[in-house]
Parts: sequence; structure tokens; C-alpha cells
Amino acid sequence: MPARLIDSIATTGALADVFSDDSVLSAMLKFEVALARAEARVGVVPAAAATAIEAVAKKARIDPSDISKESLRAGNPVIPFVKILRDHVRASDSAAAGFLHWGATSQDVSDTALVLLLKRAQHLIAEDISRLERALARISEQHKNTVMLGRTLMQAAPPVTFGLKAASWLGAVNRSRKRLEGAFSEALIVQLGGASGTLASLGDHGVAITCALAEELRLGCPEAPWHTHRDRLANLACCCGVLTGSLGKMGRDITLLAQSEIEEVAEPGGEGRGGSSTMPHKRNPVGSMEALSAANRVSGLVGAFLSATVQEHERAAGGWQAEWPIMASLIQSTGLAAASMAEVSEGLTVDATRMRSNLEHTKGAVFAERAMILLSPTMGRDAAHRVLETATRNVIAQGRHLAEVLAEMPEVTSQVDESALRDLEVPERYLGSAESFRTHLLSLTAQQTRAYKKEP
Amino acid sequence: MPARLIDSIATTGALADVFSDDSVLSAMLKFEVALARAEARVGVVPAAAATAIEAVAKKARIDPSDISKESLRAGNPVIPFVKILRDHVRASDSAAAGFLHWGATSQDVSDTALVLLLKRAQHLIAEDISRLERALARISEQHKNTVMLGRTLMQAAPPVTFGLKAASWLGAVNRSRKRLEGAFSEALIVQLGGASGTLASLGDHGVAITCALAEELRLGCPEAPWHTHRDRLANLACCCGVLTGSLGKMGRDITLLAQSEIEEVAEPGGEGRGGSSTMPHKRNPVGSMEALSAANRVSGLVGAFLSATVQEHERAAGGWQAEWPIMASLIQSTGLAAASMAEVSEGLTVDATRMRSNLEHTKGAVFAERAMILLSPTMGRDAAHRVLETATRNVIAQGRHLAEVLAEMPEVTSQVDESALRDLEVPERYLGSAESFRTHLLSLTAQQTRAYKKEP
Amino acid sequence: MPARLIDSIATTGALADVFSDDSVLSAMLKFEVALARAEARVGVVPAAAATAIEAVAKKARIDPSDISKESLRAGNPVIPFVKILRDHVRASDSAAAGFLHWGATSQDVSDTALVLLLKRAQHLIAEDISRLERALARISEQHKNTVMLGRTLMQAAPPVTFGLKAASWLGAVNRSRKRLEGAFSEALIVQLGGASGTLASLGDHGVAITCALAEELRLGCPEAPWHTHRDRLANLACCCGVLTGSLGKMGRDITLLAQSEIEEVAEPGGEGRGGSSTMPHKRNPVGSMEALSAANRVSGLVGAFLSATVQEHERAAGGWQAEWPIMASLIQSTGLAAASMAEVSEGLTVDATRMRSNLEHTKGAVFAERAMILLSPTMGRDAAHRVLETATRNVIAQGRHLAEVLAEMPEVTSQVDESALRDLEVPERYLGSAESFRTHLLSLTAQQTRAYKKEP
Amino acid sequence: MPARLIDSIATTGALADVFSDDSVLSAMLKFEVALARAEARVGVVPAAAATAIEAVAKKARIDPSDISKESLRAGNPVIPFVKILRDHVRASDSAAAGFLHWGATSQDVSDTALVLLLKRAQHLIAEDISRLERALARISEQHKNTVMLGRTLMQAAPPVTFGLKAASWLGAVNRSRKRLEGAFSEALIVQLGGASGTLASLGDHGVAITCALAEELRLGCPEAPWHTHRDRLANLACCCGVLTGSLGKMGRDITLLAQSEIEEVAEPGGEGRGGSSTMPHKRNPVGSMEALSAANRVSGLVGAFLSATVQEHERAAGGWQAEWPIMASLIQSTGLAAASMAEVSEGLTVDATRMRSNLEHTKGAVFAERAMILLSPTMGRDAAHRVLETATRNVIAQGRHLAEVLAEMPEVTSQVDESALRDLEVPERYLGSAESFRTHLLSLTAQQTRAYKKEP
Repeated sequence: MPARLIDSIATTGALADVFSDDSVLSAMLKFEVALARAEARVGVVPAAAATAIEAVAKKARIDPSDISKESLRAGNPVIPFVKILRDHVRASDSAAAGFLHWGATSQDVSDTALVLLLKRAQHLIAEDISRLERALARISEQHKNTVMLGRTLMQAAPPVTFGLKAASWLGAVNRSRKRLEGAFSEALIVQLGGASGTLASLGDHGVAITCALAEELRLGCPEAPWHTHRDRLANLACCCGVLTGSLGKMGRDITLLAQSEIEEVAEPGGEGRGGSSTMPHKRNPVGSMEALSAANRVSGLVGAFLSATVQEHERAAGGWQAEWPIMASLIQSTGLAAASMAEVSEGLTVDATRMRSNLEHTKGAVFAERAMILLSPTMGRDAAHRVLETATRNVIAQGRHLAEVLAEMPEVTSQVDESALRDLEVPERYLGSAESFRTHLLSLTAQQTRAYKKEP
Repeated sequence: MPARLIDSIATTGALADVFSDDSVLSAMLKFEVALARAEARVGVVPAAAATAIEAVAKKARIDPSDISKESLRAGNPVIPFVKILRDHVRASDSAAAGFLHWGATSQDVSDTALVLLLKRAQHLIAEDISRLERALARISEQHKNTVMLGRTLMQAAPPVTFGLKAASWLGAVNRSRKRLEGAFSEALIVQLGGASGTLASLGDHGVAITCALAEELRLGCPEAPWHTHRDRLANLACCCGVLTGSLGKMGRDITLLAQSEIEEVAEPGGEGRGGSSTMPHKRNPVGSMEALSAANRVSGLVGAFLSATVQEHERAAGGWQAEWPIMASLIQSTGLAAASMAEVSEGLTVDATRMRSNLEHTKGAVFAERAMILLSPTMGRDAAHRVLETATRNVIAQGRHLAEVLAEMPEVTSQVDESALRDLEVPERYLGSAESFRTHLLSLTAQQTRAYKKEP
Repeated sequence: MPARLIDSIATTGALADVFSDDSVLSAMLKFEVALARAEARVGVVPAAAATAIEAVAKKARIDPSDISKESLRAGNPVIPFVKILRDHVRASDSAAAGFLHWGATSQDVSDTALVLLLKRAQHLIAEDISRLERALARISEQHKNTVMLGRTLMQAAPPVTFGLKAASWLGAVNRSRKRLEGAFSEALIVQLGGASGTLASLGDHGVAITCALAEELRLGCPEAPWHTHRDRLANLACCCGVLTGSLGKMGRDITLLAQSEIEEVAEPGGEGRGGSSTMPHKRNPVGSMEALSAANRVSGLVGAFLSATVQEHERAAGGWQAEWPIMASLIQSTGLAAASMAEVSEGLTVDATRMRSNLEHTKGAVFAERAMILLSPTMGRDAAHRVLETATRNVIAQGRHLAEVLAEMPEVTSQVDESALRDLEVPERYLGSAESFRTHLLSLTAQQTRAYKKEP
Repeated sequence: MPARLIDSIATTGALADVFSDDSVLSAMLKFEVALARAEARVGVVPAAAATAIEAVAKKARIDPSDISKESLRAGNPVIPFVKILRDHVRASDSAAAGFLHWGATSQDVSDTALVLLLKRAQHLIAEDISRLERALARISEQHKNTVMLGRTLMQAAPPVTFGLKAASWLGAVNRSRKRLEGAFSEALIVQLGGASGTLASLGDHGVAITCALAEELRLGCPEAPWHTHRDRLANLACCCGVLTGSLGKMGRDITLLAQSEIEEVAEPGGEGRGGSSTMPHKRNPVGSMEALSAANRVSGLVGAFLSATVQEHERAAGGWQAEWPIMASLIQSTGLAAASMAEVSEGLTVDATRMRSNLEHTKGAVFAERAMILLSPTMGRDAAHRVLETATRNVIAQGRHLAEVLAEMPEVTSQVDESALRDLEVPERYLGSAESFRTHLLSLTAQQTRAYKKEP
């Protein structure tokens, strides 16, 4: 289902669908059916009533706008929903109507419905993260020897490899994936507490019914209701925020590398992708832009979610009522960022030649540090520093290479031999532990990917 | 139009409508028509083309989901929108098709469309704020002599009047209304800059066309395009945040006063309003709850908007793309808070008797400060403090009134006469400047309301 | 060390100390000493140089303000710090001076210093959380049979036990403690990457030196530098946010229960604690207030931290530079909230008698749900609902008990016998699974506490 | 006074000083002296007592750490402060001691002290904004004819002038300056309400004393106390957020323009400014980086401030207690951003030659839109679009200029004459309304600057 126009660059279609009226309604119906079945299993509700409720729920045509119209007056959408559903059940089996929603409170429905939607979203996001991880691992391998400028504080710096850069992105995504899995598995639990969170109206059967409900819905069973203890959801919101931050960082790097003056990478193109209404030659980095846009939204949304976690007593006035749209936006932004960066990674054009030429264009200035190390042992750090300052000035002023300039300075040539100076600007000789770091990042990722596959 | 279920307690129906697909589409169409007309007026586009575009726009049936489907690939909804609309125009007048969207860039459309939606929202919000201001002024007058407990750090404190309390709410709402009016009037301007914000393709006519466009749309005309200068929108977002904070404060006070143990006020009831699915006796403070829920969302949403204001160069990658859903949520939350508090104020039940009895229930402990003032001049502040500590302890231990306890302490009766002690617990005698403050707050409000009505 | 006045109710003294100038300076010195020692172990730096650096670092008197003065011009405090320290080393051993800070970049120092400070903070916070958990477990046991009003949307609801309430607070704190432990253990790693994150100037020894450095500092060793991958710190920030939210919730509940009209709990008093400058009788809930104040700050601080995670390339311009004060405030707020709630819990006065009398004061209105369950089986849900509406109205109008009112309604007495009605308002008979939930929450906590102790 | 190390790149020294212990203490002393004087003027306190209090306050040596130590237990720093000050007064004039802090509550002191600090900060920030505005106006004038690439979505776009770019920065700063002035003038008011905000203990003199206090402190006089109505402070926080966002945007543009591959601008250098500990050749954009870092912090800080505006009743538990450190950080970040961008602007190196050569380097691709306009009238928009797509592909593939490529396409040369094609890539011919926009932005600014100077 396509998103609303207002959200059309803030979510993928699949995630728009997860939070659509049909989805929300269907999740609320699922709760009521599962509750009736669970209560029938435990013997609190007649089996016939549960069957009747299930039958009605399956064929009932409920118009979401009938619920929406009453939500504000009622204070939540569950009250009108239950009322309408009860009317449907009553029409078909009046005895069963009394057993609908038995022992539950509105928030039991809205919380469990949210959890059911989150579970659907989890799979969509996980899939895109997997695609992204695979693509980044491949890119990293392909470009393990592709040297490029390092860049610090937006200025040229000693070289790195694109393989390391991609592996570093991957490392961050991988750590966030694990945190997100943990957060989802903590949060995907049913809510059932009744009016005050004691399930008083279910007598001694509260715990058994909660467990049965969890089984019906294939969700976890919490040790107690959590109406005003929102830490598990808040933690999930946070993990989305951290992941999206890392995806935004990746998007930032790509928009920077794709700049017209740099052109080291380009996002995938194709019909209608990243075009400009006025400039036919453009290939805009739309995927990265979407990840950055998601990151912009997400930091504040996490703040909003956290500020709603201070909730009063057994059920709050204003806390949980703030959550639905915030959580939906958070999940949609996160999922969009993951999908966008997956697509970008899978189709990324990498221009290794341009990477090298941009590096060479600095005329060795980025090897000044290396020259320092070469000169320091014999002439001392401070003298070396002065020599380099002079040399760097000349590199800039004369547009010549650092090695060349140094080769003409007697204080240098008296200390180091010519071959060392010739070597100075070979980037491959000045990559330090880049490859070790890269393989560590990849092997860690690989192990975890394997472990992940075995487990579930 | 009722809101989506996921947003159904996060917006009013009218504000859901403002940001609906139809509204967004209609605002984008309005921009293109107005642009063509403006360009025809200035002579850049043939009058016939403008007429043709207008005619097509009026009768074109564009399916929002056709736009949404392409938005992510394109990077914004305007590119597919213009493509679809151009096809429609071409079908009717192929020459005119070339003049559609002439000189504009996608962001010109999306920004101006947003501004048009904001203008619709402004009126809805303003109306509810006016209702709220009138209701609060009335309440304040009615209860100018209604004494009640002051409460500080959630503890009983010397008395105030409910009239002052309502006037203080009103003062804050009134200040925020003025700020919001200013923010809207700054922000309600057209956007027209073309590809790089110079309107290069319009030659010398850029300024004239911008002004004509502004006239067509009854919006302001900015001194220059503002594609990456979002301070006016950010300021509007902030003013929403500040207002909603004040409405949340009012909501908090009402939920506190409506507590079962306090019951000094009650929200309006009525069929389906604030009921509980399990507790038929309840009259939940749903309006206040909605304002509080809005306040919870809004602080983070403002943070999100601000974090998106750091935008690159002439048009940004990720900044403005983050704005639509954030601004829509902000406006909807603000409008909901205003509407909810207006409804609550108009129907608020105030129990002046209970207010007095809650005050009396403290047995004079809240007048300890007053007793201090009575005793200090003669016995000195430190001695008076010690006497009061003893007396207060006895009030609590013996469940007797402070005046009574003091009347039995010789060190007290030797200093002050009986009538002063009898007077001690009369709340009307210990209200200080409450009534002055109240009238100042109201007169200020009244003046501004008049001023506001004269001006526009 | 006491906090600055501006922060004096935003941090504990111990945590103010963690982020004091002395602590920051000492952490930076520790890094440079450990780096020299690690490099000496690997053979990259002469052992004598490392010894000289260590000796100078131990006795050097560096004035923090000499560093601060230059920080802004330099862009970070490390550049002036290294310059000053190098001068000290040079004065004592000019050869060693050249080996100071060998291969490191400024951010290596600032990040590792931050991590060292976080490690100190971890222990302080963990201790207060343990105190809090023990106190809550004790309270929960003591009050497992203490019935009190449930409260939903700030209105009276069916009863709960204070034991369950405390156990629910404990459950949330416990879950957050575990998340926080995980977050700390992920984040407590050294940073060493050199100019571009490749440790180029250390040749093949980068990995070995990083590991040796980690050993020296008793920190973890990351698979690669993380200059612009801040997810581990962001996750730590988030876990602080989630924990503080739960502490704020606990604070909110306590301020509500301590209200003058409710007085079910009181915070510990004592000389100078929670007094009022004008009202000698007051015992303000200052600990809860501090937790709430921390929660107010923390949601936005987490948002700020997340918005800084989008960092450019190998080292960012503006991202990590934003972090120090945000992280310090976050940790201090979190630690203050934990310390405050620990103190509050350890000294909390609980008035079980008042709890029961507040419950009785509702005259059975909170048992309406129970009456529904009693009546529904025989008279049907809808008829029962109507009966209860009538009865509840009479309870309020006549100030009589629900059971009493029901006992006079023939449609009721014809259906249920007298003893059932007498039983109706006995709270102990309507607690559902409260005790099961409570013991589940406590046993989970106990297991985890044991597991935690075994593992270190 | 230099900042603490932890804040040393988060504030200027002058603003660190504004929030130092000495400043806070001195502001609190000022309040107590001014209150005593005001009360003496109105006749509520003996003149001699006021004189004694003033004399003691002038010479009292109060150790801030004596206050800090007690702040947490008391719940705020004012209670221990008043206690210590009262002891000092008592030692010198025991009668006067009783009149110290007469009628005031702790929050009266802390709020008014905060306002006094904000007033000092206002002048510091205003000065740096003025410097920035002057520098930007000068740059804009100097570079009104300096053409450069427009850049949209981080890709090359039709040209702009650097003069317009600087004027657009200036426009945003100027609008924010005005908003900030308004916000400060609203917020710089005294707080005086006593225990419950009625000034009950001052009898009928409350209003008169408030006005006299305002006069003494040269602050505004509010219509009523505002203990729990924080909209004026919140609005000030917001205006800081919006301004800093605009300064961050300017910083972002400068870091992008200063990239090694682009080098169109450079920040001022100089001893110790923007150096790198490992790369002697670097001139890091430290000023822009500091503005960006401030912008990163500020969005969340504003969110935090807003989330604290929901305050209970007459004085809140947790709301205002959250404000001091948040407001201090906000003001310091804002002031740092303003100071940094002022310094950057005053010393900015602009390389007009490089700007032109970067533009030429695109080989006319950025003039594709212009070519469209040239070709559309004769060949129709769609045909022109196809021609341009082909031509642009050839520009990229063959590395030749667009004009050159087009000049070889018969379908083009049959439509437009050679001179028009020669003209195609002259940037001066394709600037549209750039200069009009620039002068509008500047004249608006100039008027307001004049108006501003006349007024105060």
C-alpha cells in the first residue's frame, strides 16, 4: 500500500501498510479473538462464546472511520472498537457478546495490537538490514585494496581503503542489528492486566490466561502487566534511533563522496530514480538523502518517546496515549533508512580510479605525517615539524609534490635516502592496520551472522 | 474526515483533513495553477497556456497513490506529481504542457503547498484558542472569590483563588497565541526559487513573478527564496511547542484537581466521553489527557524539526525532506491540545465547596507562614520559627487546628490577641495580591484581544 | 567535590567529581602514559622514553585553565594539552618528548578519556541501583498484603497491593540495570586510530599496540577504531534515558502518593531535607522531584546525542565535539536519579492504614466492575451494566456504599445472595493475580541479581 | 574565566563566566539586596534592615561549595544560600536577619537570578551577532559579482553568486536576531510570588514591591508571578535553537566549501587555530565545526526545556528544577556558535578564482536547464528534453563542453544560432534575480539595523 502523500518520503510502502487502518483493526480483532480462545481454554469463557466471537471477527466489516470518529471523546480507539464489535457479536450470538473483551482493559488491546504490528515490522526491517549487510560485505571485499583519501574534519587526511570504510559501516549496522533483535525480543510480549493491572476479574486464572493468550498470538509472556512500565518499548525506540543514526552516517558519507567535485561513488540510477525536474543530467543521491532525512526525524522522535515514559500509577493520563504515532513514525523512518541504504549498497557505483586520482591530487600533503616519521628519528621531532611546515607551504604555493619539494631540501637529503622519499607518496605503504581492522570487522560480522542463523 | 486509527487520538478530524491526500494534492495543484497565472500576467507564459493548465487542474482526477508509488525513487512527491499533471495537460493542450511548472523546482511546490496547508491549519487552531480564551476569562471572573489550596511541590500551600489559577492559564495561552500569530504571519510566504534559488530561467522577471504568485495564493512575498533557510518554519514549530507546553500544564493541573481524592473539578461528561470499558462510574479527564499526550509528543517533534534546520547549500539532502511529517504531527498535536482544552474549559465543572473543604482539611497547617508573620515582629523570626515547628507537629499529631493549638501556647497568647488568632485561618484574609494579579492578567488579555480584532 | 551551583541539583557530588577538571586531566594523562607503555612493550617507542613520560605525567602540575584557554582555537582540548605536556616532558628528557602521543590523534585521547570517566561513573551508578533494588525488594515483601487504591487516568480504580507496585518499579529498574550493564561493557573500549583511523604511523604494530593499550587501561579492545561510529556511546546514552524514565515514573508515583490529600507515603525527612523556606511544616518530596527533574532533562539530552551521531568520514566536524557535555549531563542526571530514588526507597514511610482508608473512602465505587461480574452471569452483561450505572449514581448522590445500595435493589437481591454482596467490598478478595505477578517480578530480579554476582 | 575542560569547546570564556559560581552567587545576593531595598521603599521592611542586609551582602564571603553541599537535600540551592546569608546578617545585625528574604520563596530567588544571568548573556551574544551581521554584509557586497556553483542535494547546479549566499546567511541571522531580542525582552522580568504566587505575606503591597524590585534590578515587571508558567523562558530557549540552527547551516556550508577538493573558502588561520596534532599542513574549519557542534546539542536541549514546561499547580516538582543546567547549556552553545561564526566571517578567505574554475569544471552540465529554455520554444519541451539527455551523456562520456556538443547536433543548430550557444555557458548571463534577491536581503537587514540602533 503506498504511503499517504504527507509521509510519502518518510516510509516504505510495506511499512505504511503495517500501520494502516486495516492492519490496526486486524490486530485489535486478533487480540479479542485470541483472548476469547485463551479464556475458553482455561475455562473462564464458554467455548461456544469463543467460537462465536472468532466467527464474527472473521467476517465482520468494520469501518475504521466509525472508530476514529469516537476515539477522541472516548480517549482511545479501543472503546468504540469494542462497542462496535460487541454489537456485531450480539447480532449473531447475544450470549457470546457478554464474553467479548472479558477481563481486559482498553490498553490491553492497544498495547498488544501495537506489539503485533511491531512484529510485522521487525521482519521487514530485518530483511533490509540483511540485504544491506551482505552488500556491504561484498563491497568491502571487492575494495579491500582500493585506496582513497581519508578525510577528517572535512579535510584531506592520510589514505584509507574503501574496503575499510565499507567494513566500518557494516560493523556499526551489525552491532545495531543485534541490539535491535534483542530489543524486539524483549518488547514482543502480550499486555493483559485488566482495569488495575491485577486481572482481578479473572480470579485465579490471570496468569494462565496471559500465557495462553501469548501462545495464541505467538508473542512472549511477561512476568506482569506493563501498562505504565514502558522501558521495553522505549528501549526499542532507542535501538531504532541508534541504527538510523548509523545509517544516516553512511548516507552522509555517500552524499559527500558523490559530490560533483569528488565523484568517487554514485548511487544507482534507473528510470525515475533521483532525477531532477529541471536538470536532466543529475543523478541525485536520493537513497542517502532518505536515510539522512530519517536520521533527522528519529533523534527527536526518540526524545518524544522517552519523555512519555514517566507515567502515572496503574494506567497513565497522557503517556501511553502519546505513543502510537511516535512509534509508527520511528519504525517507518528506521525501516525506510534501512531499505534505502540496502538499495544504495546493492547498486553503488564505485570509481576506484577517481579515488586514487583525488588522493594524488593532494600532491602528497596528506603524507606530511609520514614524512615526519621518516625525519624525526634522525633530526628530532621539533626540527622535523619545522621542515614539514616549510615543505607543505611550498607544496601549496608551487603546486608541486611533497616528495619533490623534500628532495630539494638539503636538510632532508642529508638524512634520508632518495628511495625512501620516492616511496613517501605510495599510499599502499601507508595504510597501517587498515586491512587488519577490515578483516576483524568482517569476521566478527560473519560469525554473528552464522550464529544468528543457527539460533532461531 | 476522521483521522487514521494510528493517529486517532493525536489529531482532530479537521486537522487530519488539512493534511489528507486530497488536501496535499489540491495545494500542489493550486501552486501550479497560480504559477502559470502569475507567469501569464508577467508575460512569460502565454495566457492560453495558463488558462489550459487551470482548466485541466480543475477537472483532473489524480490518484494520490500514483504519486506516492514513485515518491521514494524520485526523492520527493513533486516529481511524479508534475509528470502526471503534465500528461493530463498534454492530453488536452500539448503546447500548454511545456509551460507547466515553468521555472520552478520541486521544492518550490512542496514548500508552498506546505504553507498553504499551514494557513488552513492556522484558522482552525486560532478558533479553538479563542474559544479557550473566552472560556477561561469567564471561569476566572466567576471564581474570582473561590478560594482553594495552593499546591507547591505537590504539597498543600497557602490559598489561592481558582480565578487566579484560571487567569494564569489564560495569560500563558494569550502570550502563546500572540507568538503563534507572529510566527504564522512570518511563515506564510510563497517559495519560488527554481533550481538554484536564483530563478535563473525566468530571466529578469523572477521578482515580479514571485510577487504575482504570492498575490494569487494570498500569501506573503519573501525577499528571497528560502530553500535552505528554514528559520521561519522552525520558529513556527517552536511556537507550537511552547503553546502546547502551556496547554499541557493546564491539562496536568486539571488531572490533578480531578483526582478522586481531591475532586475539585471535573471534565465535561456526556455520551461516550471519558467512559471506561470496565468501570461505569468513571468520568475520565480525557481532554486533559489528550493535551498532555500532545505535550509529550511535541517537545521531541520540535527537537526533530530543529535538528533538520542545518541544510546544505542551495537545496539540502535530507533536511527539508524530513519536514513534512514532522510539521504535520506538530500542528495536529497543537491543534488537538487547543481543541481539547477549549472543550474542557467550556464544560468544566468546578466544585467551590470541595475546594474550601480541602483547604479546611489541612487544619491551618498552610497558614503557618501567616502565623510566623504574626509572631515574628514581637518574638523575633527565629523564636517564631521554633514555636511554629512545635505547633505544626501538634496539629499533625493531635489532628487539631493550628489556631487552636497556638491559642493554648502561653508564649503565643502573651504576644498576640485572640481575635488575630481567630482570623488566622480565614483564607480570604491571606490572599495577598491574588486579585490584583488576576485583574492584570485579564486586562492585558482583553486589550490584546481588542487590538487583535482591530488590526487585521 | 560539590557540584557547580548551576548544576547543584542536577548531579551528585561524586558524579560532579567524575567530570571535574582534575578527572578529565588525569584521564588524558593516563591515556598518554598507557600509550607510551604499550608502545614500549611492542618495541615502537624506547622503554626509557615511556619511563620518562610516566615520571613526568605523575608529577606534572598542569593548570586546566591553560588548556581551556586554547581549546576553542584548537578545536579541542587535546591539542593544547599535548603541547603543554610535551613541554613538560621536553624539560625533563628531550628525547622522550618526541615519543609522546606517538601515532595518536586528538580524538584518540578525548574518546579514551571519556571512556575512562564513564567507567568511574558506572560503578557509582551501579552501587546506587543496587541499593535501590534491595530497598524495593524489601518494601515489596513488607507490603505484599498492603491493599491500596489502583489509580488509572488519575482516577480511583480497583485495588492493588503496594507490594505489587514496588515490585513493578523494581522490575523496570532491574531490566534497565541489565541493559545498562550491557551498554557499558560494549562502550568501555579504547580508542586508537591515528589521523585517519588506520594507525598508519605505527606500521604493522597498530593492532598489537591497541590491545596493549587496552590492557594498560583495563578497557576493552575494539575490532577497529570507532572515531565516527558512535553507536556504542549512543546506546549507552539511550540506556541512561530509559532507566531515568523508569526512575522518573517511580518519582511521579511517589509525589502523587505523597500529596497532602492522599498522604499514603512520605519521603524520608531529617535536618535540612525537603524543608521549605516559608512553610516549616512541609516535608517536600525532594528525592522524587530530583528524579523527575532528571527525567525531564534526559529525554532531550538523548535526542541531542543521537542527532550528533551522523558523523562525516574518518573524523567528523561537529559530531564528536558535541558529545562531552551532553554525555556528562546525561550520566550525571541518571546517577542523580538513581541516588535519589535509592535514598527515597531506603527511608520511605508507608502508611498502610491511610492506604486502606483512601480505598474505603470510595464507598465501593471501584468495585463496580466486580459487581458486574457478579451480576452478569445471571442477568446478562447489558442489564448488569444498567443496574450498575444506576447504583453508582446513587452511591455518589447519597454518599452510601455500593454494596448497601445494591442490597436494596430487588433486581439485584433476586439474583445474588447477601453474603456475596457483603463480600463485594473486601479488597483482599479482588486482587486477582497481584501476588503472582509480584512474586514473578521478584524472583526474576533475584535470579538476575545472583547471576550478576557470579559473573562479575 | 576559561570554561571547565568538559565544556571547553561548548562555550566561550565570557559565557562560562556568566554561569560561574561567582556569577550565580552574586545574582542571588543582588536579588536579596534589591528585595530588601524595594520592601524598605514601600515601608514593609525597616530602612535600617535593608541597609544592613546590603552592607553584609557586599562584604560577605560565601563559599559556593557550602551551598552546593546542601542543595540536593534541600531540593534547591536557595535554601542553604538564604540560611548562610541569614547567619551572616544575624552576626552583624540580628534584627535585620529577620527581614532578609521577606515574603519571598526559593524559586523567586532562583528565577530572578537566572534572569539576571540571561541579561548578561544577552549582551555578549548580541555583540557577536552584530559583528557577524557586519561581516556578512561586507562579504556580500564584496562578492556580489563572484559567481560560483549552486549546489543542490550535494550536486552541481546552475550558478549563484557568493554575494547572494552570504546575504541569505545574513537574512536568516537577522531574522533570528530580531526574534531573540523579542524573546529576551519578554523574559527579562523579575519573579516574586512568595509561597503560593500570591505574595500573601506582603499584604496589599505585593504589586508595589514587585515593581520596585524590578526597578532596582532594571528588569521588567510581570503582570503576575510565573512560577509554573515558563512559556517566556521556553520561547527564549526556542529562539536560541532557531538561531543556532541557522548558524549551523552556515557552518555546514563553509565546511563543505572548504573541503580539500573544493577549496573555495578557508577559515582564518593563525597560531594554534585549527591545527592538527599530526598534520602540519591542515587548516581545519574549527569555527564552523563549533557552530555545527552547538547545533547538534541545541535541538535536543530545546526539546528538554520544552518537556519541562508541563509544571504542576503553583510551584512544580521537577519542572523548574530541570531548567538551570539546560538553559545554561543552551545559552552557552548559542553564544559559542555566534562568536565562532563572527570570527569565521571576519577572517574568511574567499577564493573567487577557484569558485569560477569549479564552475567551469562542470563543462556546462549545469547549464542544461538553460539550454532547455533555449530550445523549448522552437522544438517543444519534450523534444528539447530528449536532445539534452543525449547531449549531457556526451558531455560526461567525452569530457567536452555542453555548448560544444550542442553545436555539433544538427537538430540544435537548425534552431538556435551560434552566438546563443556561445553565450550558453557564461554564468553572468544566467543568474536570474540573484542580485535583486541579494539587495532585498541586505536592505531589509540595513533598515532593521538602523531601527535597532535608534530604539534603545
